[in-house]
Amino acid sequence: MSGVPKADWVVGVDIGGTNLNVGVVPLAGGLPITFRTEPTEPQRGAKFVVDRVVKLIKDAISDVMEEKGCGLEDFAGVGIGAPGPLDRKTGTVISTPNLGWRNFPLRDLIQNAVNLPATLDNDANAATYGEWWMGAGRDTRTLVGVTLGTGIGGGIVFNGELYHGTSDAAAEIGHMTIDSTGRKCNCGNYGCLEAYASGPAIAARAIEGLESGADSILLELAGDLQDITAEMVSEAVVRGDSYATEVINDTAKFLGVGLANLINILNPEVLVIFGGVARAGDHLFVPLRAEIRRRAFRVAEEACRIVPSELGGKAGVIGAVACFKSEVYGAL
Amino acid sequence: MSGVPKADWVVGVDIGGTNLNVGVVPLAGGLPITFRTEPTEPQRGAKFVVDRVVKLIKDAISDVMEEKGCGLEDFAGVGIGAPGPLDRKTGTVISTPNLGWRNFPLRDLIQNAVNLPATLDNDANAATYGEWWMGAGRDTRTLVGVTLGTGIGGGIVFNGELYHGTSDAAAEIGHMTIDSTGRKCNCGNYGCLEAYASGPAIAARAIEGLESGADSILLELAGDLQDITAEMVSEAVVRGDSYATEVINDTAKFLGVGLANLINILNPEVLVIFGGVARAGDHLFVPLRAEIRRRAFRVAEEACRIVPSELGGKAGVIGAVACFKSEVYGAL
Repeated sequence: MSGVPKADWVVGVDIGGTNLNVGVVPLAGGLPITFRTEPTEPQRGAKFVVDRVVKLIKDAISDVMEEKGCGLEDFAGVGIGAPGPLDRKTGTVISTPNLGWRNFPLRDLIQNAVNLPATLDNDANAATYGEWWMGAGRDTRTLVGVTLGTGIGGGIVFNGELYHGTSDAAAEIGHMTIDSTGRKCNCGNYGCLEAYASGPAIAARAIEGLESGADSILLELAGDLQDITAEMVSEAVVRGDSYATEVINDTAKFLGVGLANLINILNPEVLVIFGGVARAGDHLFVPLRAEIRRRAFRVAEEACRIVPSELGGKAGVIGAVACFKSEVYGAL
Repeated sequence: MSGVPKADWVVGVDIGGTNLNVGVVPLAGGLPITFRTEPTEPQRGAKFVVDRVVKLIKDAISDVMEEKGCGLEDFAGVGIGAPGPLDRKTGTVISTPNLGWRNFPLRDLIQNAVNLPATLDNDANAATYGEWWMGAGRDTRTLVGVTLGTGIGGGIVFNGELYHGTSDAAAEIGHMTIDSTGRKCNCGNYGCLEAYASGPAIAARAIEGLESGADSILLELAGDLQDITAEMVSEAVVRGDSYATEVINDTAKFLGVGLANLINILNPEVLVIFGGVARAGDHLFVPLRAEIRRRAFRVAEEACRIVPSELGGKAGVIGAVACFKSEVYGAL
């Protein structure tokens, strides 16, 4: 730990396909004391997104300086979570289908703009590590996280350490094939979990059924058929809409196949589900657990708690700080 | 290591659905100096199988005593690999569809019969660990093994340690779903990798096509349609049979889906393939690697060597010794 700055705060950055979240978290652990969010709008280009992130970081730092009466020297640095695959050593995002970046030196762009050391890790890794540090995975050894959003990602914690794999590409759970001749995925392949259970995939499946004449309050909620989102499907389910319930039951089946695979392979103690679709609560979790029970080995299924994220939208920010701390200080 | 017997030799036992292999391996590492094998014949009952294993162990120990002029005190114990799921702590096999055992106290039965301490681990875990210790995985950090036999199993080595999961059920790769509405598996589910790429599944797919009128030397090799085995399919491929080549190409596709999933999830440095079907050599590995390249993230695929086992039929025995040594002495 020699040469490591003594400081009280770390900025956490969570770059998603839909939203940018930035918060300031105590180095010792805890919830963000300030939290800012803006839409990502990736179609406006990489420079636009980076500028927006940098502004959010500077604003968040100002918030804390004002509130705590402290200076920049009280900030250890910035932990960044971004969609992968990426190279942690060079701080480069190698490719992100959902943001359109290729070999993009994200870490250094941010580091130079805010004049603080920064680390880069996969966003789903970060959320998972955050949940292990401060959320549903506290005091566990082996935890798997699955992020259901614009894409589907994942993270794996073994014995309290985030597992990155041989080339920082571990836990790319969204592109696990669950139906080798199934739906086409954004990645070009067929039958990836993401092609069934990501937010856009859930919405697409809902729209397909409505186009075939299904009756539902979804149209009313969305106004226009093409504006239907996965969140609206969850909302319609909670309001008792039977068609939306069918869509969520199918989602639970597809997701159950993917999670049963993870349980059969990794035999984790906890499996944490992130993302808006978890808001459907028991409407999702009851059929999900049933499908997993049907497909996973019993000893593995019985050993595993399957729970929604405790930290919700803040997991990515808290986790990006956990990744920064683990990388710079060697441990949490 | 206090209280641990000083000894030169360990007996390794590999209990498969088809064959029982027993060998004696130097505690310091190396190949078996004696090796005995007999058919399992599980249909003759658990007692028959255990008696046969015990006789093989005693005969193997006698071989070594005679050759080396040593006594029982020069044997540290017996490492056993058996199909799982199992409980390492109690030494019990919880259930094995392919052998028909349930809550079976295998370790203690063998331990008491041969009067040496014994350990029990999953057979595929053992083969994988053996390959890491003395085979294709030497000097690597993260290795995944896939055993293609009567069933399909797997093993995971992280940083030189065998990964067992929360309840000793990790790496049950054969029951990964690759087609959620696909072929029925012995386990009762649909679309498991094992239902496509295990030995009996390869044979079943070959027979289905022949029943529909395909032309092949397979019938000649087998004599009777129902006697066709996966090994015969590999042999027919090597002899240039075009129908058998089609069967192996399909096998490569199914297997490629499963292995791409493992690479996307675990991002290993090496993936080792065990089993007779690997004898098809490039006829299997060329289309297999192509399917993996199509489905896995490029950075993960490029980081991973996909190779046949170096230790072949001896991996299970050497690995059972590795498991014994790691459990009793704390490290390899």
